[in-house]
Amino acid sequence: MAKGHEHTIKAFDAEIKQLRALISQMGGLAEQAIADAMTALQRNDTELAKQVRAKDKAIDAIEAEVEKLAVRVIALRAPMADDLRDVVAALKIAGVVERIGDYAKNIAKRVPLIHASGKDRIDAVSVIPAMAQMASEMVHDVLDAFASRDAEAAIRVCERDSRLDDFYDSIFRTLVTYMVENPRTVSEVAHLLFVAKNIERIGDHATNVAEMVYFAATGSYLADRDTDSTGV
Amino acid sequence: MAKGHEHTIKAFDAEIKQLRALISQMGGLAEQAIADAMTALQRNDTELAKQVRAKDKAIDAIEAEVEKLAVRVIALRAPMADDLRDVVAALKIAGVVERIGDYAKNIAKRVPLIHASGKDRIDAVSVIPAMAQMASEMVHDVLDAFASRDAEAAIRVCERDSRLDDFYDSIFRTLVTYMVENPRTVSEVAHLLFVAKNIERIGDHATNVAEMVYFAATGSYLADRDTDSTGV
Repeated sequence: MAKGHEHTIKAFDAEIKQLRALISQMGGLAEQAIADAMTALQRNDTELAKQVRAKDKAIDAIEAEVEKLAVRVIALRAPMADDLRDVVAALKIAGVVERIGDYAKNIAKRVPLIHASGKDRIDAVSVIPAMAQMASEMVHDVLDAFASRDAEAAIRVCERDSRLDDFYDSIFRTLVTYMVENPRTVSEVAHLLFVAKNIERIGDHATNVAEMVYFAATGSYLADRDTDSTGV
Repeated sequence: MAKGHEHTIKAFDAEIKQLRALISQMGGLAEQAIADAMTALQRNDTELAKQVRAKDKAIDAIEAEVEKLAVRVIALRAPMADDLRDVVAALKIAGVVERIGDYAKNIAKRVPLIHASGKDRIDAVSVIPAMAQMASEMVHDVLDAFASRDAEAAIRVCERDSRLDDFYDSIFRTLVTYMVENPRTVSEVAHLLFVAKNIERIGDHATNVAEMVYFAATGSYLADRDTDSTGV
């Protein structure tokens, strides 16, 4: 009987490990998608943008795998307390990473719509990749925090979100000013506004994951936070 | 033994019923939030907008309840096939409805930022509530489809999304034109662009729910659909 129990624990540990591996694989793909979307935007590379859109299916497929495995683990092993929180966190985090991939895909979709003859003159365009880099690092670090069950690291990711929001607010103002001064570029610059907004949302999602990681690791909730930028 | 089994089935049915009830309660709150956000937008009613933001916590709380119950059902009853698909669908749909609530909250947050002295002159402002109504009906109908496990009704909701996307594209063009002609309103009108985008996203989420309902009811996937509007 004790041996059977031990076997169950070993199997559970292997499954949790597999869940974590799948999620870090998803995270890696999402980070790559963000980076590629930015490269495509800067170089007007519609071919690369198309690839970002196509590769999103791989992220979706891993999410489906995580869901299947997590549900099987809950049903077969009926894990308790810490272990259950971990499995549920994996399930939810996979859903969020899938959405982060969608934001990258959405940015990629806008690339062909932003030809911006005068794009190089828009200061915001040159800083958007830096903003994306910041968001992408939040995603990376929060998934590391999940992998190592590190509640403190999760808090640090949350704290970075307000800097990302400030970044967004500043880009929002720059783009609006640019539109006012160059009314004929409004349509294209509006797409850049959405690109910046998508990146800001990636940061919000990283923050949501941080809250899930904190809860999974500690069993208590991080104080309610309002993740929206002041610029809304 | 047979009696014990029967008891389990009864308990399971009661729990599934409770899950469905919680989700339709969430859906009702989300629909109300969308309607109130629109009223607040039209009347410049910042007080009502504040209420929409405050009430969002109720939606979040029900989502947490659904999650708890769903996980308990999976662990205790280890449901198979159809039943398991139903419970997982409930879990996922609750997550999506929570996001729909967030979009309504986000619209409400923008209300104080859109004073739009000339708002009445912007055609798009008068049609945005009609667009929101369309999105809200999609949410309503897809949750009805979930309650009645109606795969056909779910498909019909999916089919309506392209009309919502067309609506969004038309509003996008109208707002951009307005910005070009009235450069000084750009900042406020940009917020309206985001409002329209949020509504379009609500429709996308209703479509996602429709796919989940279809899968829960039939066990097979609706063909991959691209829910984004052409205007991205």
